[in-house]
Amino acid sequence: MTKYQKIANIDYKKELESAAKSMILVHEPDILIKMVLRRIVQKVQVNHATILLQHRDKDAYLIRVSHKHPGVKMFTGFARIDKDNPLIRFFTQHQDKQIFDDGALVYEELKKTLEKNIKPELKQLIAQVIEQMEVLEAIVCIPSYFRADLLGMLLLGKKNNGKKFNKQELNFFLALSSEVAMAMRNAQLFKALELELDKEHRLFMNTTIALAAAIEAKDRYTHGHTARVTDLSLEIAKKLIKKRYKALGPKFLQDLHIASLLHDIGKIGIPENILNKEGPLDDKEKKRMEEHPLVGVNILQFINELADCLAGVKYHHERYDGNGYPEGLKGDQIPLIAAIIAVADTFDAMTTERPYRRVLNKDDAVQEIMSLSGKQFDPQVTAVFFQLYQEGRI
Amino acid sequence: MTKYQKIANIDYKKELESAAKSMILVHEPDILIKMVLRRIVQKVQVNHATILLQHRDKDAYLIRVSHKHPGVKMFTGFARIDKDNPLIRFFTQHQDKQIFDDGALVYEELKKTLEKNIKPELKQLIAQVIEQMEVLEAIVCIPSYFRADLLGMLLLGKKNNGKKFNKQELNFFLALSSEVAMAMRNAQLFKALELELDKEHRLFMNTTIALAAAIEAKDRYTHGHTARVTDLSLEIAKKLIKKRYKALGPKFLQDLHIASLLHDIGKIGIPENILNKEGPLDDKEKKRMEEHPLVGVNILQFINELADCLAGVKYHHERYDGNGYPEGLKGDQIPLIAAIIAVADTFDAMTTERPYRRVLNKDDAVQEIMSLSGKQFDPQVTAVFFQLYQEGRI
Repeated sequence: MTKYQKIANIDYKKELESAAKSMILVHEPDILIKMVLRRIVQKVQVNHATILLQHRDKDAYLIRVSHKHPGVKMFTGFARIDKDNPLIRFFTQHQDKQIFDDGALVYEELKKTLEKNIKPELKQLIAQVIEQMEVLEAIVCIPSYFRADLLGMLLLGKKNNGKKFNKQELNFFLALSSEVAMAMRNAQLFKALELELDKEHRLFMNTTIALAAAIEAKDRYTHGHTARVTDLSLEIAKKLIKKRYKALGPKFLQDLHIASLLHDIGKIGIPENILNKEGPLDDKEKKRMEEHPLVGVNILQFINELADCLAGVKYHHERYDGNGYPEGLKGDQIPLIAAIIAVADTFDAMTTERPYRRVLNKDDAVQEIMSLSGKQFDPQVTAVFFQLYQEGRI
Repeated sequence: MTKYQKIANIDYKKELESAAKSMILVHEPDILIKMVLRRIVQKVQVNHATILLQHRDKDAYLIRVSHKHPGVKMFTGFARIDKDNPLIRFFTQHQDKQIFDDGALVYEELKKTLEKNIKPELKQLIAQVIEQMEVLEAIVCIPSYFRADLLGMLLLGKKNNGKKFNKQELNFFLALSSEVAMAMRNAQLFKALELELDKEHRLFMNTTIALAAAIEAKDRYTHGHTARVTDLSLEIAKKLIKKRYKALGPKFLQDLHIASLLHDIGKIGIPENILNKEGPLDDKEKKRMEEHPLVGVNILQFINELADCLAGVKYHHERYDGNGYPEGLKGDQIPLIAAIIAVADTFDAMTTERPYRRVLNKDDAVQEIMSLSGKQFDPQVTAVFFQLYQEGRI
């Protein structure tokens, strides 16, 4: 064993291990493929490296080309070739040991096979493959399979030093190509799952928004109320988190978002004649009206995933001084999620035309909210609310 | 290079490649780890192989032990060791080249270091590590890192032939351990994403069910109506798919599920006095009532993800003979999703007490539905409906 061989051996192993390491946890197909191509071109000093990757629908292969040296004319970015392309057909239909033994297809070797005594159809296919390799300026094609499935292919241009690829290099590429295709498939699956999750989340949020808006539409005085309360609640919460509740993360914001969308859901059961009454409510009507937080909880209580939102629905009419409903909670007993909605809800009611209550302009409404700080509202919430006002964000 | 070395070399590469290949696309952590452990014990003939894998919260490592030979006393299944365990601390705090050069920790070598002149704290830690290895019956520990993060560790028992592990074997395990930890992390991330998707889907379905039920609760005659219509619609659809619409897959069922939950959502805007009127509706009231499919569409129309459900909401009061509303569609013009809901909806209305309509028993209601086949209802839907009845599933 010469010293050169030994070093080459170690490089090969290290390269493969390090490539695999960096690939598996990259779940962005585009970044992954760029990374791999850059690595190949840098380490092996080839003119270009191109990856063909099976499309999810399996009807085509996507082409991705490395940054290549000036003077080489090749398409960049993603393009696609059909699964009927001779190059693909060759690897899916003719895994013929006669033609290429270890799986790598070498341009020079392939040309020689045309002289051999092989079946005419195969000869024709090989001629087409050679043509494709010329179009793609590929000296070597290395397929990678998962079981019988052709996941992808690595195509390499000339070596910069003009030499042929040796056996060891071909073996390395064979192993690498296989890893790349698997990592790419993995990344694609990951990406698909993430997109599905996004879609499902949008579906949930949008449906909840639509239904909340529909329920609210019954009450002709509150058009747009839910959306405005939700926006303001989230503004307050973001500032609170920044200022003093760093531990409250995205989960709190998500819960608050849902809770403020659904805070008045319990009004669904209140007859229109109470909701829209053009005069003060009598005791019975008032009692009915004040049931809406608990009716809301009744509607949502069996949805486990909403457990942390319920406090916002249930307690958004509690008062800091203990004079609210439904339980008369006081001060810190009132969950923060509800204390935030309470401020946003009241501010929006004050600035919207309602029966038997004059509409306040923004400045007056803020002043009234602040005068109720420590009485009706949690002072730490009103403090943040006032800052937002001063910053012109309310 | 002797022949033996060459063969061993090829085995090593092939093993690693084949291990990597089978690992990346296995996204079930439990299956993955079993697979790897079985492979190690079979190929390398060791007494046992144990994997420590960093927990998602990074505060502990989970222990997974291979099927071991009888006589070895070890805990099986998942157990956990704290991140303060000396074994973990050694690899996270002392990546000391003096102690182990290539990353593998060999029990015999480690014992020798205790004789060396090293810092007392390190000596104490090494003594604790040795103790841990004895508890775990480990001859070798092989850590695997992602950047500076200790993802996991491979622990191997004695070789069955009693020999020491050679350098080449240690190198193989080092590479393998790294691959295993990455694949496991990948699988864990995948699993976490799948669980999140499940959760988000449950959240959407349950919230939609709760809100639909709440909207329906306004109409005291229809308690449970939505749930029953949804169940029956799905039963009919599954049978239809089995019989003649094999192309309609899970997507159709999912759309139908949502559409039947929301089919009466437009009733949200109809005043209670019309919904609950104890006599026949006058023309104006009837007109108002018949607007509910279009009101439903108005509520949901901007939710892109629900686009394929809308036809069910919009057309569930169309009739096969063209005398329905809102558009008077006829026969095959009526989307299948709506034709299914129409049958389920009417059947449930017939068998439930309503003002000014006698309640029918199940047999009479089925008979009436069948007598309206081809007039009010799509014959292919009623045919399946009747089969379900005959099978006792209605």
